[in-house]
Amino acid sequence: MKQDQMIDIREATEQDVPQLLAFIRELAEYERLAHQVVATVEDLSRNLFGPQPCAHALVASLDSHPVGFALYFYNFSTFLGRPGLYLEDLYVRPPARGLGIGGQLLARLARLALARGCGRMEWAVLDWNQPAIGFYRKLGATPNDDWTTYRLSGNALRDLAAVESAAGISD
Amino acid sequence: MKQDQMIDIREATEQDVPQLLAFIRELAEYERLAHQVVATVEDLSRNLFGPQPCAHALVASLDSHPVGFALYFYNFSTFLGRPGLYLEDLYVRPPARGLGIGGQLLARLARLALARGCGRMEWAVLDWNQPAIGFYRKLGATPNDDWTTYRLSGNALRDLAAVESAAGISD
Repeated sequence: MKQDQMIDIREATEQDVPQLLAFIRELAEYERLAHQVVATVEDLSRNLFGPQPCAHALVASLDSHPVGFALYFYNFSTFLGRPGLYLEDLYVRPPARGLGIGGQLLARLARLALARGCGRMEWAVLDWNQPAIGFYRKLGATPNDDWTTYRLSGNALRDLAAVESAAGISD
Repeated sequence: MKQDQMIDIREATEQDVPQLLAFIRELAEYERLAHQVVATVEDLSRNLFGPQPCAHALVASLDSHPVGFALYFYNFSTFLGRPGLYLEDLYVRPPARGLGIGGQLLARLARLALARGCGRMEWAVLDWNQPAIGFYRKLGATPNDDWTTYRLSGNALRDLAAVESAAGISD
């Protein structure tokens, strides 16, 4: 890092929402999943800064310009009996990479996790993203190789919600 | 199901915590992960029913006897801009299986998810648990095959939290 470059990590505010949405779209492009992004400024404002927030965000700046973010929420482990910190998104713009900004975001999250009494930090990585996987392994992160996440959405979710009686689904 | 068997699904209360912990231990035995369970009654009481709850639970009863549970929390999708419902644990005692109780728990969760404005329901399944996987696929659930969850805990988490400067980690 050049001596005159200043990195700052801070909590996001509602004024950051348009910038956060731009970062989310850039991350989705990188992940080849841009078609999945339907979030709006209003969605993010309500769910991050409304009366019932379900996630939180950090903004990373380089020389006072936002260059990355981390978005996270708290989950829960029944085995540990404690919350965990789940990192939903981590992104640093390509020109700002190699300066340790991603690592600083992760370090701040680790401090938040310990302050909240969390037993662990977790996040999902695309299996082809070897640069990211190498970075995470260097930190000591371990893959949950034996588990696969299943997802129910759209009509399948609505159909399940419509089941009222035990006769509807047999396990 | 015999005509005289009554299934009931209700929200857990703090009085259910010892029963929930017993179910969590039985589930861990089934998953061959009993050694990972360190949760106590106090942990669950605080984190489910304290001033800052991080998860919620449903209890399923058969003829007024608790026979299973679901434990869940809300997560967040940046791509959807909406919360999701994450099912951490789903368990029905073996003698009570085949009556549709698991399906009723899932249907109640789907209704909770839609009521909260969630875009999806998600949960993790052990790859060897083919009976569960078959059941979830019948509901229309799809696997996130391209993703792996990474986890940081213990000393690795504490080491990361101790990083204060950009020089500490290079990405």
